[in-house]
Amino acid sequence: MEHPVSRYAVPRFEELPTDIRDRILAVQEKSGFVPNVFLALSHRPEEFRAFFAYHDALMDKQSALSKTEREMIVVATSSANQCHYCVVAHGAILRVRAKQALVADQVAINYRKADISPRQKAMLDFAMKVALQSYAIDENDFAVLRGHGFSDEDVWDIGAIAAFFALSNRMANLTSMRPNDEFYLMGRIPVK
Amino acid sequence: MEHPVSRYAVPRFEELPTDIRDRILAVQEKSGFVPNVFLALSHRPEEFRAFFAYHDALMDKQSALSKTEREMIVVATSSANQCHYCVVAHGAILRVRAKQALVADQVAINYRKADISPRQKAMLDFAMKVALQSYAIDENDFAVLRGHGFSDEDVWDIGAIAAFFALSNRMANLTSMRPNDEFYLMGRIPVK
Amino acid sequence: MEHPVSRYAVPRFEELPTDIRDRILAVQEKSGFVPNVFLALSHRPEEFRAFFAYHDALMDKQSALSKTEREMIVVATSSANQCHYCVVAHGAILRVRAKQALVADQVAINYRKADISPRQKAMLDFAMKVALQSYAIDENDFAVLRGHGFSDEDVWDIGAIAAFFALSNRMANLTSMRPNDEFYLMGRIPVK
Amino acid sequence: MEHPVSRYAVPRFEELPTDIRDRILAVQEKSGFVPNVFLALSHRPEEFRAFFAYHDALMDKQSALSKTEREMIVVATSSANQCHYCVVAHGAILRVRAKQALVADQVAINYRKADISPRQKAMLDFAMKVALQSYAIDENDFAVLRGHGFSDEDVWDIGAIAAFFALSNRMANLTSMRPNDEFYLMGRIPVK
Amino acid sequence: MEHPVSRYAVPRFEELPTDIRDRILAVQEKSGFVPNVFLALSHRPEEFRAFFAYHDALMDKQSALSKTEREMIVVATSSANQCHYCVVAHGAILRVRAKQALVADQVAINYRKADISPRQKAMLDFAMKVALQSYAIDENDFAVLRGHGFSDEDVWDIGAIAAFFALSNRMANLTSMRPNDEFYLMGRIPVK
Amino acid sequence: MEHPVSRYAVPRFEELPTDIRDRILAVQEKSGFVPNVFLALSHRPEEFRAFFAYHDALMDKQSALSKTEREMIVVATSSANQCHYCVVAHGAILRVRAKQALVADQVAINYRKADISPRQKAMLDFAMKVALQSYAIDENDFAVLRGHGFSDEDVWDIGAIAAFFALSNRMANLTSMRPNDEFYLMGRIPVK
Repeated sequence: MEHPVSRYAVPRFEELPTDIRDRILAVQEKSGFVPNVFLALSHRPEEFRAFFAYHDALMDKQSALSKTEREMIVVATSSANQCHYCVVAHGAILRVRAKQALVADQVAINYRKADISPRQKAMLDFAMKVALQSYAIDENDFAVLRGHGFSDEDVWDIGAIAAFFALSNRMANLTSMRPNDEFYLMGRIPVK
Repeated sequence: MEHPVSRYAVPRFEELPTDIRDRILAVQEKSGFVPNVFLALSHRPEEFRAFFAYHDALMDKQSALSKTEREMIVVATSSANQCHYCVVAHGAILRVRAKQALVADQVAINYRKADISPRQKAMLDFAMKVALQSYAIDENDFAVLRGHGFSDEDVWDIGAIAAFFALSNRMANLTSMRPNDEFYLMGRIPVK
Repeated sequence: MEHPVSRYAVPRFEELPTDIRDRILAVQEKSGFVPNVFLALSHRPEEFRAFFAYHDALMDKQSALSKTEREMIVVATSSANQCHYCVVAHGAILRVRAKQALVADQVAINYRKADISPRQKAMLDFAMKVALQSYAIDENDFAVLRGHGFSDEDVWDIGAIAAFFALSNRMANLTSMRPNDEFYLMGRIPVK
Repeated sequence: MEHPVSRYAVPRFEELPTDIRDRILAVQEKSGFVPNVFLALSHRPEEFRAFFAYHDALMDKQSALSKTEREMIVVATSSANQCHYCVVAHGAILRVRAKQALVADQVAINYRKADISPRQKAMLDFAMKVALQSYAIDENDFAVLRGHGFSDEDVWDIGAIAAFFALSNRMANLTSMRPNDEFYLMGRIPVK
Repeated sequence: MEHPVSRYAVPRFEELPTDIRDRILAVQEKSGFVPNVFLALSHRPEEFRAFFAYHDALMDKQSALSKTEREMIVVATSSANQCHYCVVAHGAILRVRAKQALVADQVAINYRKADISPRQKAMLDFAMKVALQSYAIDENDFAVLRGHGFSDEDVWDIGAIAAFFALSNRMANLTSMRPNDEFYLMGRIPVK
Repeated sequence: MEHPVSRYAVPRFEELPTDIRDRILAVQEKSGFVPNVFLALSHRPEEFRAFFAYHDALMDKQSALSKTEREMIVVATSSANQCHYCVVAHGAILRVRAKQALVADQVAINYRKADISPRQKAMLDFAMKVALQSYAIDENDFAVLRGHGFSDEDVWDIGAIAAFFALSNRMANLTSMRPNDEFYLMGRIPVK
């Protein structure tokens, strides 16, 4: 392949532990391809398992935050960290989840101008504070979010997603993780 | 208790799942007290499990980085993020690991002035870049570290620890996690 | 229309001076739609004329910089300024010019990771310096660019494009200029 | 000449197109000397024409902003960009326009301490936001300025002047444009 | 000595002027050791005298600010400047003055999370503004502090201490001043 | 008086201690007027004495740095701190000392473009590092300055002046100290 998936070696599929192979096969079946994050992180199976367990605990569970909103948090904060992989891959997921072709690029460039609700803007203001100056979080931030109808559990969700992608963005930048070409077009063309 | 452990409710011990109780009992037996991060994160058992699995995969495994060096990375980057819990708790662990009473405060305040080796300074320079501007990591950074004898696997370790604590610092700041009073004095008085 | 083109009123086409109408008709014929920058800036005909005269002097002329390279400069610096209009509109033009579907998103997110040549990375390093800290430009910057084969006239082109879009980005942010929906998909699907 | 006007060659007067010669002769007649910006930019006649057309559209027209206030915007934002030419040249014009010897230096150093009205301070607060973080402009900014009696057209004027000098400052820094010695003393000595 | 006190030579005690020797003997008698700042600055007797005269005028006088509060200002702002000497030495003094073992580390890491009163947080907010962006101090800052019961003379005290340690931190960083080992443990163990 | 000298009361001359009155009379005799820093700081006689003792120890002594060079350091760093009083007052002194009308404004706006020697630029690079990020000073900085012929004592002088004006700038911003009108024109008109 012309462009490597990662700065680090990606093990051959046959070499991987069974549970990681199963996870990779499952995502391939669901998405039609294997997102490179699964390949790049398979370089370290223990970290792979913890990473996806954390990811799933935040992104797949039931929550008052819609899956669309969770992806908005990922895209906005990953853009602030200039994470190539995360903006492209999660931008795609955001388009698919939102059934809206434009919102991912808008949130990536300047979420303040995106076609989102005031509640969602407040959510992203807080996510960006977690991403960029979490030391200054205080009760006023919680009060603002409560004023938009978020519960304290929702605030944990917002903050934890921003925190998890603080990790994820740095791993992608460390490994020079490359997004699959498939992501760029996903969700851009309305399905009739 | 006068000062709460977290902004969020901490479940009663009896309410916790068995595996989390076991983990808490184990750390209590080893340390003589339960570090508050175990209590604060037990608010969300799934995230608790993933968090400590990730932590252990990086901090407890065999590595060319000594445990002391790994704690230096935690303290330096957590200080840059102004994370009260992580600097105090991991400062204590660093003192204990290093069997050196001064190094933790030095690394927390300005690692450039700490009593550490040039190799360790290069390690912390890179960890700080991961913490603060990971988008700019490039081949030159790897070359510098190789020049100090680090392998590419070591660089992953350095970067992954800085990345994991980027998450951890943000969770501690989000929950206003309070370090146990016990940490402040640990490792400060030489044991004969 | 649900989403306004600009914070400011857009004159009706009939009210516009002839030369501005002609320019708008020409771009419509060429592109198949009228990019909103023409509508938003028509609020001030004198400034409209100067803006597009400046634009054309830099972007349409013969130059050792290819049109693709010029659009890379626009996209990279506009992203640094978080300019919604410019990243979306010029991202589209970049995809079309480069006949390459991925490069615009890559340059917008983190040009250091984009599929571009070392010469183009040096070009964008300098463009970003013009955008973000032009006071520090010195002879070393010129020497680096000469080392990549750029003439001093090329350096003027790079710098002037970054400078012109410093203006353009601020006008778009001031007026809350909205990119046309058409831009988002342009150049993403290879034409057989 | 000991100190060059620009990093780039300045054409001989005879080589310049007629319209540019006329413009230069006009400014010389009015000012008694040719400000170096006319010489430095004559290196590129097309850009020269667009630059001064834009300049005149903002700085010479009728506006609710006085010419003094417009020069304040130039001086404050050019100082933030550390633009040697623009602070010196427009500082001189500001002193002459304001018939006030001190205000230009005050605005250049720290406009918050200058002998200007609260309305003018609000104007400069907004101009600085356009100069430094235009992505964050929102309705609150407009509300503040309306509270000081500015119309939305006035806000465009403030923002457009700050945007135009974002361009101008970068061109001056790119070309290392040198202000004429004459500017330094202009307007400093009260004329009886 | 393994770790030098300063980048610069420290005169032998016998070589020092009498007044400086007396000052050093006095501090040694009171503290049981000679803090290295006295040795490092004795390299320049005139500056030594002015430095400690200034220090004493602010830190030893009667004031509505308690000595504990004054040390909080020193620790918080010195941490922002990453001053190894000042955080360690004044952290020790703060612990002793406050008769509280934890507060110094808390204020050094993130004063917003420290066990201090809202009035003390407001005091440190202002001290940090003096340390980091004094150009933006305005009447609103004074109003906030008055709202917490501070007089304008108290505000001078807060600001002057932050200003003096802006000097002190820079001198310590310039000379690579090393804190005495004794400081690290002072005030950490409650005295019965 | 229309514009107050300081946010704080200035004692009547008769109320001041004798030594402070003498100092004020001496400067008045020398300069022809009393610079406002003497009035503003006389609000606190103890601090006044220490301030000027420190000032004189650095600015009036024999040194390998010329008095002109010392004033360059003051002007450059005070501009970075946006200190109205210090830039205006020391800009005047710099013009007088340098017998050069232009250099003070140049150094205040962007010292990289000023008509100064490479050695003086290196001196100001270091002074700015002391002013803005003293925690990062290291042996490389000393090596660069030695390469320009500065001794380590000269480096102390450069750093100590930048450090002292870090204090001075903050006091001027705290008190909203106003420069005397006389300063603005001093040294601008060549004396035959």
